[in-house]
Order: sequence, then structure tokens, then C-alpha cells
Amino acid sequence: MKVPAQVRQALSDLMAQYALSIDENRLEDWVELFDEGCDYKVVTRENVEQDLPNVLMWCDNKNMLRDRVESYRHVNLYNPHYDRHVIGPLSIVGNHASIWRFEASYSLFQTNLEGESRLFSVGRYRVEARVRGAAAKLKAVTVIADTGLVPSLLATPI
Amino acid sequence: MKVPAQVRQALSDLMAQYALSIDENRLEDWVELFDEGCDYKVVTRENVEQDLPNVLMWCDNKNMLRDRVESYRHVNLYNPHYDRHVIGPLSIVGNHASIWRFEASYSLFQTNLEGESRLFSVGRYRVEARVRGAAAKLKAVTVIADTGLVPSLLATPI
Amino acid sequence: MKVPAQVRQALSDLMAQYALSIDENRLEDWVELFDEGCDYKVVTRENVEQDLPNVLMWCDNKNMLRDRVESYRHVNLYNPHYDRHVIGPLSIVGNHASIWRFEASYSLFQTNLEGESRLFSVGRYRVEARVRGAAAKLKAVTVIADTGLVPSLLATPI
Repeated sequence: MKVPAQVRQALSDLMAQYALSIDENRLEDWVELFDEGCDYKVVTRENVEQDLPNVLMWCDNKNMLRDRVESYRHVNLYNPHYDRHVIGPLSIVGNHASIWRFEASYSLFQTNLEGESRLFSVGRYRVEARVRGAAAKLKAVTVIADTGLVPSLLATPI
Repeated sequence: MKVPAQVRQALSDLMAQYALSIDENRLEDWVELFDEGCDYKVVTRENVEQDLPNVLMWCDNKNMLRDRVESYRHVNLYNPHYDRHVIGPLSIVGNHASIWRFEASYSLFQTNLEGESRLFSVGRYRVEARVRGAAAKLKAVTVIADTGLVPSLLATPI
Repeated sequence: MKVPAQVRQALSDLMAQYALSIDENRLEDWVELFDEGCDYKVVTRENVEQDLPNVLMWCDNKNMLRDRVESYRHVNLYNPHYDRHVIGPLSIVGNHASIWRFEASYSLFQTNLEGESRLFSVGRYRVEARVRGAAAKLKAVTVIADTGLVPSLLATPI
């Protein structure tokens, strides 16, 4: 579909920021990528395909995201791993006015304190974002993880 | 090289669709990304570098792709894995009129029904695609797999 | 931030070339992506975060890169592996005149001669590049590897 170049770039930048802010442990910056009225959810692909209601993590407004990051800061004094997201090209699905929907696949690797890296999770993002000029904010992010073995008490977001 | 922005976007969208259609098990949609006169081939890097004729999979027109997908639908009643492609940035090589050539690296992960994900194959795509306005169709895709251990009877395309 | 479309494309092309030239063992082409006055460094994330001076590899001009590639050509008569980089979307940080700074995450896989692929390293690139029209040259590349177990005598660049 035809998408204005500026919209494409804003959405691509948004996802690059999404990944780097988590990977550099700037989770407070990650929260700021979301709109005040927002929704963040982690589900497994199996649940989506069988239309089951289970979710691994769900925050349905920005304050819940803030709380989650704050509690993470207090519980995990020493971060036991580094995250690394590598995201594929965006597939833009469509828009309603300034709200754009798109999908992108991700691979997420974790490196432990001994310096060993391993594949942690793969899947895709289903995203709605509001674009205004060169700026974009996340309205809804659903992480659909192919990997079902993600611990239900996720330490850091995917 | 200088490439019109619309061409870049059309090619990037095409590869995003390529990956997502396989990963979401929409193989019929994947076939529709190809031109009627098309060529799809999976080879190993070793064979390319030594100029050997072996191919792991070869369909030299769209009906062969259709047949392949249809037979896959009948043989595999239960899909034993999920695919997940993460594709890197496109490197556009050049064009002859509306036919553009480009390459892109891929990583392909598989997740089994127990929810365990693993690296399945890495390599690159060598692609020719026809671009008309915002629309693009695949003319030729050669998958050059670094990984040589891919089973010769590939269940799903790479 | 607002970035001219031509600059974005030049930087994206540059990184696509960076990855493919290493992966196809065209290391001489890889060197030519750098400016005459350039800096290439591989460090670990741990060292960056603790502000330690250790580097795994450092070439502070283009001749050092040339020397390194030439010595690699003489030492390794038979290449014991294939590299494969999959790079995520670029996050452009800013510019001073024609010098642009950006970051991008990478995953690097290696395939041995038996055809087995494995994850070798993940991390991010911190890059400065000079852009002139559609052409870009690397001024400084710092590879910040999450993976600390990379051998200190790196055979090929990351």
C-alpha cells in the first residue's frame, strides 16, 4: 500500500528506539515511546491461533508500564543479562486517520554475565502507532511470541 | 546507487510480505507474491562458490510453486513447527527497465510445538523483482543458504 | 529526528554493504567502505559500561585495516567458516554538517564447513559516516559486542 515516506520513517525510527531503549536498559525511555492511553501485551502464538485469552504480560495504560519498570528497578539490583533485539522490515497494514497499523518480526537474544549469548525469543510485533509529522507514539503493542517457554514473570519487556 | 524512493519501498514491502506470509503459514499468499513467469530456487553457498549444479529445491514457474504448496497442505496435516524470518536491509544492485535486482541476508528460526526456538538457517536472498508503481512481483528468488544441513525435502520454503 | 530521505538511504545502503562484503568474504571491498581517516574498534559492552580502556581490536586508520585484511589473507589459506550478519533498523542520532551518527543492532552467525550454523555474536554498531549525495563513507565504527567470549584475535571483522 502507499504510505507517505515520512510516516514510514517515523514508524521505523519508533521501532529502532523501542529495541535500543530496552537493549540499553533505558526502560524509562521505552515507556516514553508509548501514548498516555496505550496497551502493551505479550501473548503466545499458540494462544492467538486458538483464540485463547491467556496473556503472559498485560499493561493497559501507561501508568502500569511505569509501575512495572519501577518495580523492576527495585527488585533486580543487578541485571543478570543483556537483551539484544534484531527487528526485520516493517509491514504496514493500513491506517485510520493518524493511527497506523503495522507488523514486524523480531529476534531477541540474551547474553549472560559470563558473556554467553543465546536465542531467547522470536516472534512478531503487531503495533498501532499515532504519527504526527516526524513524531510517533505507540498506542498498542501486542508481542506475539513463537517461543512459548518465556517465563511468565518476564523480567524485561520483549 | 540512486534508486527512486518508491522502488525501495516497494521492494522492502515485498520482502516483508515474503517473510510474514511464510511465517504465518499463508503459503498461498506467498505464491501470489511471484510473477506468473518466475523461478524459485534453494541452493547452498558451497555449491554456488564451487559452481556446482545441485539445488535443494527448484520451481521454474508459478504452477510448480502452487503444486508444491498444495502437496504440502495434504501431506502435513499438523504443522510440526513455526517459522520466523528476520531479514536485514536490502542491498539494491541495479535494474533493467522495471526489473530490479537486490540481495538481503536472512536468519530463519524454527519453534517446535513444545515452544522451543532454534536457529534453522542463515544465508541470503538474490532476487529479481518487477516494480510497477507501488506494486512489486517476484521474478526470480535464489535462496543461498550458508547452512548446508537443510533437509533436501524442505517442508516449507525458506 | 528529521533526516533527509537521501541520507537515510545512503546510510542504510552503507550498512547493507558493510554486512554483505564481510559475509561474502570480500574484505577488500569492506575496507573501501571506510574513509582514509577512519577508526574501527571492537569493544565489549561490559568495558563500555564500566568505562574500561580494553579493546578487542583497534585500527585507527585505513592502512591498518588494509594490513589486517592482507595478513588475514596470508594466514588463513582455508576459510574455516562463513559469516552472516543480520542488521536491524538504523537509529539516526544526529549530525555535524555532513557527518552523521547512528546506531544499529546486529546479530552475527557463523557456519562451519560441516554446514552447521550457530550464533556467534550480538551487539550494536555505533557509527559516524560522511554523506555526500547518494554516497557515504565510514568515518568511525565502534562494534559494541554484548558477547564477551569473542576470541581476541578476531579472524574476520564483526
